[in-house]
Amino acid sequence: MHRNVEDSPVGCFFYPRSLAIIGSFREGHFGGFVIARSLMKAGYEGAIFPVNPGYKEVHGLKVYPSIRAVPEKIDIAIVMINAKSVSSVLKECGDRKVGSVILVSDGFAERDEEGARLQSEISYLAKSLGVRILGPNTAGVVNTANGFNPCPYEAGYYKLRRGVTAVCAQTGMINPQAYPYPDMRFGVSKICDLGNKCDVDECDLLDYLAEDRETGVISMYLESVRNGPRFLRAARRAAERKPLLVMKAGKTEEGAEASRSHTGSLAVDDRIFDAACVQSGILRLQRFNDVFEMPKIFAAQKLPSGNRVAILTVTGGVAVAAIDECAKQGLSLSKLAGEAGAELERLFVGLGKNPVDLGPMMAAVQGAFDLYPGIVDTILGDKNVDALFTVLWATPAGKVISRYVETYEGLKARSHKPVVTWIYGPDAQATAELSRRLEDIGFPVYNTPEKCIRALGLAYRYGRFLAHGTKGIEDAQPGHFSGYCMR
Amino acid sequence: MHRNVEDSPVGCFFYPRSLAIIGSFREGHFGGFVIARSLMKAGYEGAIFPVNPGYKEVHGLKVYPSIRAVPEKIDIAIVMINAKSVSSVLKECGDRKVGSVILVSDGFAERDEEGARLQSEISYLAKSLGVRILGPNTAGVVNTANGFNPCPYEAGYYKLRRGVTAVCAQTGMINPQAYPYPDMRFGVSKICDLGNKCDVDECDLLDYLAEDRETGVISMYLESVRNGPRFLRAARRAAERKPLLVMKAGKTEEGAEASRSHTGSLAVDDRIFDAACVQSGILRLQRFNDVFEMPKIFAAQKLPSGNRVAILTVTGGVAVAAIDECAKQGLSLSKLAGEAGAELERLFVGLGKNPVDLGPMMAAVQGAFDLYPGIVDTILGDKNVDALFTVLWATPAGKVISRYVETYEGLKARSHKPVVTWIYGPDAQATAELSRRLEDIGFPVYNTPEKCIRALGLAYRYGRFLAHGTKGIEDAQPGHFSGYCMR
Repeated sequence: MHRNVEDSPVGCFFYPRSLAIIGSFREGHFGGFVIARSLMKAGYEGAIFPVNPGYKEVHGLKVYPSIRAVPEKIDIAIVMINAKSVSSVLKECGDRKVGSVILVSDGFAERDEEGARLQSEISYLAKSLGVRILGPNTAGVVNTANGFNPCPYEAGYYKLRRGVTAVCAQTGMINPQAYPYPDMRFGVSKICDLGNKCDVDECDLLDYLAEDRETGVISMYLESVRNGPRFLRAARRAAERKPLLVMKAGKTEEGAEASRSHTGSLAVDDRIFDAACVQSGILRLQRFNDVFEMPKIFAAQKLPSGNRVAILTVTGGVAVAAIDECAKQGLSLSKLAGEAGAELERLFVGLGKNPVDLGPMMAAVQGAFDLYPGIVDTILGDKNVDALFTVLWATPAGKVISRYVETYEGLKARSHKPVVTWIYGPDAQATAELSRRLEDIGFPVYNTPEKCIRALGLAYRYGRFLAHGTKGIEDAQPGHFSGYCMR
Repeated sequence: MHRNVEDSPVGCFFYPRSLAIIGSFREGHFGGFVIARSLMKAGYEGAIFPVNPGYKEVHGLKVYPSIRAVPEKIDIAIVMINAKSVSSVLKECGDRKVGSVILVSDGFAERDEEGARLQSEISYLAKSLGVRILGPNTAGVVNTANGFNPCPYEAGYYKLRRGVTAVCAQTGMINPQAYPYPDMRFGVSKICDLGNKCDVDECDLLDYLAEDRETGVISMYLESVRNGPRFLRAARRAAERKPLLVMKAGKTEEGAEASRSHTGSLAVDDRIFDAACVQSGILRLQRFNDVFEMPKIFAAQKLPSGNRVAILTVTGGVAVAAIDECAKQGLSLSKLAGEAGAELERLFVGLGKNPVDLGPMMAAVQGAFDLYPGIVDTILGDKNVDALFTVLWATPAGKVISRYVETYEGLKARSHKPVVTWIYGPDAQATAELSRRLEDIGFPVYNTPEKCIRALGLAYRYGRFLAHGTKGIEDAQPGHFSGYCMR
């Protein structure tokens, strides 16, 4: 369709060469004052044109009295004015050939009937003017590739780490003011709040992100879908190129009702949505935080070629809970091959079975941790093992920590199988610090054992989808497990 | 049975006036060296008798060559020697009338058949000697009431905050070296790792904790139950006095198999266990971290008198996910009474409906946060509201934070309805700091919206159990909700 994805209609929302900010520039925690500062501090190099007749200057930038008065071409306008005044500003945008508008203003379909009427009006108007609208009721976008971070709320930070995950939602809960992105070690490519979706919707965004070379995994929070069949096609196309994770809220009658008040959108039957996920290769998420946390398994690790998980732990207790979770996620516990098992058994009696519990050896053998890297290699080298879940104990002592770090550094070069890690310990700061170090090497760490296994389950299902299409993902749905213990 | 619960056989494990530590005192991260230091630093005032023929002194304490050589009465012995030598030490304990042994040593039923044989042997021996054993393969206990913290692993801290929650498990993953208890603002009363349960088991512990005046809520992680009917009776008795939360791992065939290797115990059919929970008033947990996190709703808040939840939020998006979770947990969204609704509507158009979304008002009205305490009061004063879930945005600005703190301080005196809080924001440290402040006032904060609702669901089910017995809890099981959206 477009030579460069940056030049597509949706691409303009992420790669504007110039933008106008239309709204208040009063100093505070919301509005044009915040946006202008955020863009400058995030390193955005395009032209910024603040527009408001009541101001002369903001952050050293000249403020123009009207859109008309801006001397250069405007690629995009960010609009934060009273809902009733939006149509006249849209007309001015049309006159100036502004192709894209991020409409931050609220008070539309999410508010009341009058708002819904206004929203249809501007939606119709925008079409007739050839202006694309993101929103209304949106906190906008971020593009980490060009420092385009026009966040309208003060977040206290401006630069986000660049990565391959695109985070999109029908809520501003994913924009920088709502989430500590500096702690997200694997970074993001793009962020987009779709708001009320009066024009640009989840399908437009999916079509764009499927082609976007900066994006390797797409994570979405949705409450509604505008056009079911189109969504299925767009999702399938995207999922064939990169993992597509979707959390859909409004599953229940009451949730769906609340969703109508939030973004004025109609809910979709949840069972139909579930079936649609299987058909289109969507990896469905069930928890809000998973939107941020699950993509990192794809950002950094290879897909497993099967569902056989090895568990390497320093405590048997949590292995049991993890194995339960494996069964729920369609994963199974590897039976170690004779060779690997024997090798571990030679190190310490009882070590050669999965879950591999280092606990007894650590208590009995001085310097047991020197054997750690070799043990990890033996397990990952086993042909019966497709993925590894490791449990680390962040002890108060630094020596063990550096042995962990060495091991993971070595693994990075050698391993072709996904590794997920859970770290526990008596000192939350030490645990967080070790997590950061391992993630900086490229290994995702989750803060519960269940999340680790969930992430492996998603990676496994995505691998099945790529290899076998929807049949693969259908067989590997969570919950399709062999049954509860009958003893 | 016993005049004072402290004098009961299990009470001796928590209130020893003197103890012997039998094992190695080599400087390191595990063993007698760590235990002696931990007891001294935790403020334990009983007598400590290290026992080992190879040492003269540890941390300024005289080391005795044998149990026989200890000049005073020994209430309890902590034993960390080779499995094969345990029986001879038990005999010496019997000779000296040591009533209780915490058997840290591993290599018993969790290891192999030979270990299982050894375990039966010591179990039989202990009975004939009149010695009670906790373990083997246990990380022991903690009692915050008397500074009795003989943790055999270095945790880097020694004192734990005193609180009403007892945390018990069939794994050392709940002992101080495994969890950052200093971050647990509501504290603990007792910690107990049951280990392989060769003698003291979950029923003994339940009987004891049900009577324990320091314990207001019991949280347990189990892999197996030794005696089903006895467990049901003990659980029911305990649950009638205080909330009893149980996470049982080994739900699946594979999990149950792993559990056998971990503590050498037999698994129980998971569906039977589920039914048993309903019959005995157990609140079943499904995630490992919930063992630590769910008790605080009971530690600090009143039980709700019904299942109608009000949601006060600054963002509509998460409300939808929370409402979905309410339906899963048997909770429903309150319909605000005419009066409360009208009062909120007077403050800002659209505010008078549940979920109460402050977002639009905050963006439109300067100083909207001055109205926050009044809004909370109006909602909690509504007769249609049984519980409140609040969502706070920890902004980079300090002013809003202090308004939140003021509001919760006021609430503490006035409110008789449970309030749970989720805090989000762009700065993880600011979020954690606000969480700490609110928890110090007495309001539990959870780090996901779903956890908040899960906690309210548990509180609601427990209230039903107290009011209506098992019938109440059966009706209010999670999953018994009205059905998915069919639109």
